[in-house]
Amino acid sequence: MMENSTPSYSPTARTQTRIRSMRGVYDKAQVHAILDEGFLCHIGFVIDGQPFVIPTAYARSGEQIYIHGAPASRVMGVANRDLDMCLTVTLIDALVVARSAFHTSINYRSVVVLGKAREVTDLEKKREALRCFTNHVIAGRWEQAKQPTEQELKATSVLALQLDEVSAKVRTGPPIDDEEDYALPIWGGLVPVIQTFGEPMPDDRALPGTTAPHLRGT
Amino acid sequence: MMENSTPSYSPTARTQTRIRSMRGVYDKAQVHAILDEGFLCHIGFVIDGQPFVIPTAYARSGEQIYIHGAPASRVMGVANRDLDMCLTVTLIDALVVARSAFHTSINYRSVVVLGKAREVTDLEKKREALRCFTNHVIAGRWEQAKQPTEQELKATSVLALQLDEVSAKVRTGPPIDDEEDYALPIWGGLVPVIQTFGEPMPDDRALPGTTAPHLRGT
Repeated sequence: MMENSTPSYSPTARTQTRIRSMRGVYDKAQVHAILDEGFLCHIGFVIDGQPFVIPTAYARSGEQIYIHGAPASRVMGVANRDLDMCLTVTLIDALVVARSAFHTSINYRSVVVLGKAREVTDLEKKREALRCFTNHVIAGRWEQAKQPTEQELKATSVLALQLDEVSAKVRTGPPIDDEEDYALPIWGGLVPVIQTFGEPMPDDRALPGTTAPHLRGT
Repeated sequence: MMENSTPSYSPTARTQTRIRSMRGVYDKAQVHAILDEGFLCHIGFVIDGQPFVIPTAYARSGEQIYIHGAPASRVMGVANRDLDMCLTVTLIDALVVARSAFHTSINYRSVVVLGKAREVTDLEKKREALRCFTNHVIAGRWEQAKQPTEQELKATSVLALQLDEVSAKVRTGPPIDDEEDYALPIWGGLVPVIQTFGEPMPDDRALPGTTAPHLRGT
């Protein structure tokens, strides 16, 4: 597949936003930044007409998103049948507390990726995908941890989804109340929503002298 | 609709987990507790064979989940066409840092609700749904905020999804490494993932004497 070197994804009828007030974002740098900040996505796929939405961890490598799971899981079965998928990543930044209930909102950044996932079967490519995947959540963890055996690699399904039909949506800034409502004696503003990592908690069998990994943002 | 007074949802072929190690949870109290702790869900629906997964806020009232949005949005159009939906809520509790990359995991609690959403059209029921919705994120905010006008109510679509075909998945506890790997000089344990609210930030037009709402968990 040729790498698309333009700085934006091309909007399609399926990735264009319907609501005029929410402009779609197709800029690759912005899309990559959202994908690289999150680590949990929700995968949508259809079985017998029924949509399923399943949470799973992911990592980006260039213009690929990798997910993985047990071969027997529903989502991993999808790739073998060449089914359409949707992968969505959402970061919540703030509650937008407007003076009116109607204008109350949430500041968020989300990315929606449409496409068909393909299974990564080559063991070395699978190993590389799992390395990206492990190090995305905890930088350098792949090098610290015990590497998977060939049997473990075979017992893991890895899917790759190409970043091709992609859009982001971003809401930022304060509440937008109706002009006359700013005179009401009601507080308006933002309440930040923050995801942090807590103090690492060794398990009962952690050996003396071993130290917890360093985490992004800590 | 008769209220189902049993303490559990009935598993179906579609809500039974495929992976033996991950037991499905159907207990209503546990499902309700997860739904009441979160406020962001991901909605899955299908248009022309393509699954879409869209983030949105929600609230539970008894055995109903409410979501809302602009009438022109894709997701709100789904209810009018009696389409199948999937609503998923995921709470992340910890990174599960195993000694082996293979057993690295995430502690999470998720709920998946399958069904057809129906549109709430009666204005008073819509108002009540929006009250639940606003107060779910910020307790008492509905009573503090300016209430929606009839025109605003008409400009908001509200969907209700019945809790009927429902399952939860929960992973808790430390990493489960292979017995021989506990002897390796590699740290193992949990890294808590915590979502908190930051200090409320009034916007430029907040009036003196108005105070920020009290938030859940702060």
